[in-house]
Amino acid sequence: MIVIGESINIMSAKIGAAIKEFSPGPVQEIAVAQVEAGADVLDLNLGPARKEGEKIMSWLVKTVQEVVDVPLALDTSNHEAIEGGLKVYQNKKGKAIVNSISARQDRIDLLMPIVKKYDAQFVGLCLTESGIPRDATERVNAAYTLITSAEAQGIATGDIYIDPIVMPVSVSQDQCVEVAEFMKMVKDLADPPPKTTCGLSNVSNGSPDELRSLINRVYLVILVTLGLDSAIVNALDKEMIDTVKTIGILQNKTIYSHSYLEL
Amino acid sequence: MIVIGESINIMSAKIGAAIKEFSPGPVQEIAVAQVEAGADVLDLNLGPARKEGEKIMSWLVKTVQEVVDVPLALDTSNHEAIEGGLKVYQNKKGKAIVNSISARQDRIDLLMPIVKKYDAQFVGLCLTESGIPRDATERVNAAYTLITSAEAQGIATGDIYIDPIVMPVSVSQDQCVEVAEFMKMVKDLADPPPKTTCGLSNVSNGSPDELRSLINRVYLVILVTLGLDSAIVNALDKEMIDTVKTIGILQNKTIYSHSYLEL
Repeated sequence: MIVIGESINIMSAKIGAAIKEFSPGPVQEIAVAQVEAGADVLDLNLGPARKEGEKIMSWLVKTVQEVVDVPLALDTSNHEAIEGGLKVYQNKKGKAIVNSISARQDRIDLLMPIVKKYDAQFVGLCLTESGIPRDATERVNAAYTLITSAEAQGIATGDIYIDPIVMPVSVSQDQCVEVAEFMKMVKDLADPPPKTTCGLSNVSNGSPDELRSLINRVYLVILVTLGLDSAIVNALDKEMIDTVKTIGILQNKTIYSHSYLEL
Repeated sequence: MIVIGESINIMSAKIGAAIKEFSPGPVQEIAVAQVEAGADVLDLNLGPARKEGEKIMSWLVKTVQEVVDVPLALDTSNHEAIEGGLKVYQNKKGKAIVNSISARQDRIDLLMPIVKKYDAQFVGLCLTESGIPRDATERVNAAYTLITSAEAQGIATGDIYIDPIVMPVSVSQDQCVEVAEFMKMVKDLADPPPKTTCGLSNVSNGSPDELRSLINRVYLVILVTLGLDSAIVNALDKEMIDTVKTIGILQNKTIYSHSYLEL
């Protein structure tokens, strides 16, 4: 399973300040820490990035690639920032990932040509003109739109991560089940199937802090058992990474040894 | 999901000594503690119980039923001990469970009439004349033998818990996957389907102590996601019970509140 580390986020006080000052230290530190902890990809989350988005994202990509080789997910709704990042991105150990493209026609038309132009991958978000899907079937329909649109642009299905939109269990308990149901259905949409991902920690958004890691971890095991390929998680949460490693052991995907947590 | 507490076991030093002396205190204490912690059923494990099995099991059933109302699983290979326990068992909040009957003809012939006579349930173990099954299909075949044999005796499929035999990940990593595959198949064997259970902690048998709870918990979530109905677990492991409760929340089977772990 592919662990996408979420900790480089402009909303974090420390990282936000470092980005504002174009100060590489704190960003590089947390990049290295996440990869050492077990992250396979790093998410660079700039939010809307309305001001200087292009400059910030290209700086961020260069800054992070100076210290780690893992693929990067460029996470912003500003398409100029995305393109700014892709222009300087060096494919060391995998393509960049555009995070994200929703299943709205205007976003598809704007962003998929950029994905194609720079030979990137993308996270396709199950969000349509009607908003957040209400059940598994609406999620599958949105995923189908994303897959067929990508195909029309010449983007391979293997370069797509579908994100069904995880909802907080404290708000929409039924949606936790609908996302699980979606996992059982999405692999039949194309051959080869798209990959899947999700913003895992959203499931515990609004829950008390002491419950969040537990809820995140149990939900991760549920979704991975049903086929989830990757998740955007707190890679610095050791219990989370231990859980990911234990899933790999019990699915017989990595070889067991008494010291598997240390590897 | 049905939690079967494993802590009343003659192999435990404290419980073993109490049973030897017919001293109710330690047994009743751990019975109450398990139910308070979240056990829905208590397993009474006497092992082979070759000496005085009947006397011990009937004493144990009476002793435990003095303090808790949950159903009991009578866990011994001594059929006289089983019958001794069933004779005195009072159905307060559910039938007794005979744990276990393997899919060997001699065991079926010996034990199923006892299950029928006392209107009990039973754990059907996927163990045949050829030994422990080597894959999911052999497990399904053994389960089919158990279900059809029970049917011939007039035992309802709803009174059967099939146990696929969980193997230690440190020894048979591939068998962890085979048990998971079995979970996807077993529900198609009969309508209504049999229930399923397993001796969960066997998955971490042989692993270092500090890994055992983690491996047990992750495997539990994997198996419950695939349909496991119950498991014999350490109900006094708070992290285990918290995991069980969190699965219920995320499967939308129990209602979320910020204090769900305390309920």
